Amino acid sequence: MLKPSVVKELKTIVGADNLSTSPEDLVVYSYDATQQEALPWAVARPGTAEEVSRILRLANEELFPVVPRGAGTGMSGGSVPVRGGVVLSFERMNKILEIDEENLIAVVEPGVVTGFLQQEVEARGLFYPPDPASHQFCTMGGNVAECAGGLRAVKYGVTKDYVLGLEVVLPTGEIIRTGARTAKSVAGYDLTKLIVGSEGTLGVATKIIVRLLPLPESVRTLSAFFGSAEEAAAAASRIMAGRILPRALEFIDRAALRAVEGYLKEDISGGAEAMLLVEVDGSAEATGRDIGAIEALVIKAGAARVIRAETGAERERIWKARRSISPALYAIKPKKMNEDIVVPRSRIAEILREIGAIAGRHGLLIVNFGHAGDGNIHTNIMHDEGEAAKVEEAVKEIFAAVLRLGGSISGEHGIGLSKAAYLPMEVGQAALDAMKRIKQALDPKGILNPGKIFLNAE
Amino acid sequence: MLKPSVVKELKTIVGADNLSTSPEDLVVYSYDATQQEALPWAVARPGTAEEVSRILRLANEELFPVVPRGAGTGMSGGSVPVRGGVVLSFERMNKILEIDEENLIAVVEPGVVTGFLQQEVEARGLFYPPDPASHQFCTMGGNVAECAGGLRAVKYGVTKDYVLGLEVVLPTGEIIRTGARTAKSVAGYDLTKLIVGSEGTLGVATKIIVRLLPLPESVRTLSAFFGSAEEAAAAASRIMAGRILPRALEFIDRAALRAVEGYLKEDISGGAEAMLLVEVDGSAEATGRDIGAIEALVIKAGAARVIRAETGAERERIWKARRSISPALYAIKPKKMNEDIVVPRSRIAEILREIGAIAGRHGLLIVNFGHAGDGNIHTNIMHDEGEAAKVEEAVKEIFAAVLRLGGSISGEHGIGLSKAAYLPMEVGQAALDAMKRIKQALDPKGILNPGKIFLNAE
Repeated sequence: MLKPSVVKELKTIVGADNLSTSPEDLVVYSYDATQQEALPWAVARPGTAEEVSRILRLANEELFPVVPRGAGTGMSGGSVPVRGGVVLSFERMNKILEIDEENLIAVVEPGVVTGFLQQEVEARGLFYPPDPASHQFCTMGGNVAECAGGLRAVKYGVTKDYVLGLEVVLPTGEIIRTGARTAKSVAGYDLTKLIVGSEGTLGVATKIIVRLLPLPESVRTLSAFFGSAEEAAAAASRIMAGRILPRALEFIDRAALRAVEGYLKEDISGGAEAMLLVEVDGSAEATGRDIGAIEALVIKAGAARVIRAETGAERERIWKARRSISPALYAIKPKKMNEDIVVPRSRIAEILREIGAIAGRHGLLIVNFGHAGDGNIHTNIMHDEGEAAKVEEAVKEIFAAVLRLGGSISGEHGIGLSKAAYLPMEVGQAALDAMKRIKQALDPKGILNPGKIFLNAE
Repeated sequence: MLKPSVVKELKTIVGADNLSTSPEDLVVYSYDATQQEALPWAVARPGTAEEVSRILRLANEELFPVVPRGAGTGMSGGSVPVRGGVVLSFERMNKILEIDEENLIAVVEPGVVTGFLQQEVEARGLFYPPDPASHQFCTMGGNVAECAGGLRAVKYGVTKDYVLGLEVVLPTGEIIRTGARTAKSVAGYDLTKLIVGSEGTLGVATKIIVRLLPLPESVRTLSAFFGSAEEAAAAASRIMAGRILPRALEFIDRAALRAVEGYLKEDISGGAEAMLLVEVDGSAEATGRDIGAIEALVIKAGAARVIRAETGAERERIWKARRSISPALYAIKPKKMNEDIVVPRSRIAEILREIGAIAGRHGLLIVNFGHAGDGNIHTNIMHDEGEAAKVEEAVKEIFAAVLRLGGSISGEHGIGLSKAAYLPMEVGQAALDAMKRIKQALDPKGILNPGKIFLNAE
């Protein structure tokens, strides 16, 4: 709980209108997409980096946790205030400050919705590639904190690959600028890329400089339907080895197809066991040729049916199906444990086989879909209340298999609360200690987003 | 100086054949491309990460500096052992361990020469884009330490953009693995990207996992000659704003042209005042169209003459000229201070104007060439012995102008010794303190490459 004097001071900093302490307000900031929740003690809506800095300085004096929050669409509990404290919410800092068409950069505040930035730059013939499935809701600040990936990462990379510089408030309250308005800069340690993906534990971004690309001239999309998940996975590996780099290469398994078909009340797959969704971009000639080559390749790999999206409406229909999977899965079971494992692309069929065996052993339904192109599979362990122990066992076995294949336990969701117990499996004790020493060096009092990434962390 | 017992222990670790202490051996490891030099006390050539680890543990007990070194082609003194100690040289760890064609990754030891890796992957239809001008000599370990850039960075980015994971020996001797064999991974803090570009001060890479791309089908090159540097710079900015992303866009000024023409004994430019070198890659159709569009654009921007390289030999001739600039400059003056400033692309003409004025004020010849596409200009202040004070003044003024324009004092060479005095100008005291706290957290005894990045650092 916050002392009344602290509440008063917070009101002085952000203005009384921008500080909430009433229970009905607090509950709105208590959860994210993982269904985990914890009530904060207060929610502050700062308007400037200076205000964020003053809040953090106060927190270091009065020793309360500060938890930065974007739109709460996170998939690992990153913004859930598990130790209470003050949530920093950036709805007021939601402006695109600049789109510099000459230098292909944009400067935004953390509260800008990612999809809005995409729209604005596309209207100018430019392109911001990172594309989390939640792009219509999630914010750039949240994307930076989690190093969000998305559908186009296979070709274009993730948030980190686009952030050139930041204005950051350090956990101890200092405002620093990292990086530059240029694609290259090697002036000292790369604090930009250390902060991006640090899940709001090493600093609070208050300004974000991203690089933009020219908008590709042409995009072409196809969906391919298979008689088995293994066949589809093998076809995906074949595409990636085929030296054409698609901008999206998504895999959807049987259970996910059935769920989304029920949810949208639409037959998408004609009863197929698995689907691939492939999209290429580039010059019109190149995409025409590439999509033809990919079509031939998937047919050779055993696709029973291939549909090219010839119009924008057809393309939208396919993507809508893909984006509806997450909500659709709740029709199967009341609870899901959503993991976002990643393996080398050629090992997708192998990991799916292993997951199938693990599901069988534990009597669980595990639904798999996601970014086959970069080996990043969303593995959803569907379950009822009271099956937590079984689920935990299955997760541990899946992660062990992933690491055996040279992968990572999280491709784009982050560690947060959900995976803190498993992080040591991946990185080992010495690397974990190095990370903790960095946290300690920048946040000696453990003020910023405590309880995340490190199990039992301060 | 090392105690005899330490020398003995080092011999036990790496083998007597792999430890040098004789003056004639030491001098070979005393300098880099900056002409700065300092003798190490010993040179160890480890063969494994385990040996590196044992050397670092010994150094932490006996308190001697350890300085990792690639091929000594660095441009900021990064590998110069200014505090003495033991140089770690990686000539024995020079193997490409794996080229995984299915997953588009390669795993290499730090002593692999960058150009050799490029060749080997290109023979398999793959592509490792980072391309420092010294690629025939420099090593992957050095590239990782400095986050080397190069000629293709405008389109493809720098070393950091390709390193997926590392085996690293921390300054205190622990061997850790960072990242994964996958393009995505967000398991805890991004130690990979913190180590890359840390100039050998935070860890020693003993294994490097890089991602590869499919080799572009077609490459086309043109050179364009202008009546003034400003015209050429403006044309470069125009190209970058034109929504075609060239894979190289190099600028060469009058003095650099004359120097290289003298050095190669060849008329390259027909007496032009400035030259642009533009290269595009992609599908054959796209490059044909793109190079035509760029040709039209540079002519409209005032190019007096444009030459397209129609054959491999013509292309090689142009690139040879570009790569010969650095050595050619020594014909002008015995000493050069080589800065690698970077400004937003649209500000190139402006910074060249400022540099011209600064050169005029100090009576110095300043030669400019480099990566116009990403705003990264190599600014060479030519001088004689005894002009150091004047040069230092000019450097400070150039850096101030660069920072005013939103740039960075180093695009790809690093801070090292040469720019340590200027780093605070760019990043400010609070960010500098954060960097020092990270260094202190990972290297509490200041063993690894001391005296670099931070002025008067331990």
